[in-house]
Amino acid sequence: MALRVPAIPFTFVAHTLGIAALVLVLVWNIHFRGGFAWEATNKNLIFNLHPLLMLLGLIILGGEAIISYKSLPLKKQVKKLIHLVLHALALALGIIGIYAAFKNHNESGIANLYSLHSWIGIGVIVLYGIQWIYGFLIFFYPGGSPTLRSECMPWHVVFGLLVYVLAVANASLGFLEKLTFLESSGVAKFGSEAFLVNFTALVTILFGVFVVISVLSEAPAPIEDDHSYSSI
Amino acid sequence: MALRVPAIPFTFVAHTLGIAALVLVLVWNIHFRGGFAWEATNKNLIFNLHPLLMLLGLIILGGEAIISYKSLPLKKQVKKLIHLVLHALALALGIIGIYAAFKNHNESGIANLYSLHSWIGIGVIVLYGIQWIYGFLIFFYPGGSPTLRSECMPWHVVFGLLVYVLAVANASLGFLEKLTFLESSGVAKFGSEAFLVNFTALVTILFGVFVVISVLSEAPAPIEDDHSYSSI
Repeated sequence: MALRVPAIPFTFVAHTLGIAALVLVLVWNIHFRGGFAWEATNKNLIFNLHPLLMLLGLIILGGEAIISYKSLPLKKQVKKLIHLVLHALALALGIIGIYAAFKNHNESGIANLYSLHSWIGIGVIVLYGIQWIYGFLIFFYPGGSPTLRSECMPWHVVFGLLVYVLAVANASLGFLEKLTFLESSGVAKFGSEAFLVNFTALVTILFGVFVVISVLSEAPAPIEDDHSYSSI
Repeated sequence: MALRVPAIPFTFVAHTLGIAALVLVLVWNIHFRGGFAWEATNKNLIFNLHPLLMLLGLIILGGEAIISYKSLPLKKQVKKLIHLVLHALALALGIIGIYAAFKNHNESGIANLYSLHSWIGIGVIVLYGIQWIYGFLIFFYPGGSPTLRSECMPWHVVFGLLVYVLAVANASLGFLEKLTFLESSGVAKFGSEAFLVNFTALVTILFGVFVVISVLSEAPAPIEDDHSYSSI
């Protein structure tokens, strides 16, 4: 199914979309939602950390981690280290971001874990953690035999992309859920904030699309090609 | 990236999940939401056609159309005909389902096209239509040259899966949006209807996951293997 086109141009589009999504989520939460805080009497400022950290973590750093292993013009061992460190950062920000949502709910008396977004979110963070640990053990330290690695690689890629696509879909659920709450509290359905949030979601989805397309395209020639799995 | 396991077992899981999702959406709309109608004073009965037709059309028939070309033990020309007819049915039900949502909104005085779900929905139905026409012209009638077909096939698969995944993600957005409205109108957040809708969404997502995994797995040996693209 691999697309017979180079991955690199798609990765540049992805970087641009990632920066755009980050700027949009910052504008939303700072300009329209009052900014961020870890401790505050206005509990909404605690919640605002949730979309920022999830987008920056699981979506943007997670996407860049996927892109990095595919497309960086570096030796395989270096790419692998970048890949696992970026995914670890993504996971850490994701966990803090989820904690921020619980903290906001608990301090505001809002129920936890009733929505589809929250259910899928817990599923995604658990699967993301399992995928990271499994990848670390098989491909980094202590590392499986060449046969085991070769057997596991397609599953690592497919399972990783599945979790990533679920994360992007769940980000969309989060944007829609939050905006629906805001609209039921008086935010205009066709106002500038509504358009901003919907466009942030669309840019986030497009970022995910370009990350996946880059994986399905042709990697640059590897620097070191023994046991290279960079072309999938 | 192809998984070195047979696709057939995954397709049986998908069929089962598709039937389960259909039963769940029927139970939801008949038992909890009062059933279906095209003309009614209770405009909610018109809306109820929307989740049913979208799920049966774009998601289930669309998924079965994808599976059919990959896995049915039939000649390529027969599989192609089944593939395009199922996708045509999916598209037709999708269009009627979207019309039902507009009809409900217009007759109830609800604004159209302000939500992320509606924006992505319009995008998906347009892309689905473009994909169908492009597939028909290149692969069925009049049909491109063997070189053109071979060049187009990976894009047909990737673009088709992209549109399909967007459709499944948008179904999740729809379930979440509708349930959020219902909960703001008094439906219990941890009540049986809320659990039913969330589980319907999860089963729908799992159906989509198994459709995609079956495409990434190994097709059965083709009946007729000249110009066969069944193994991707």
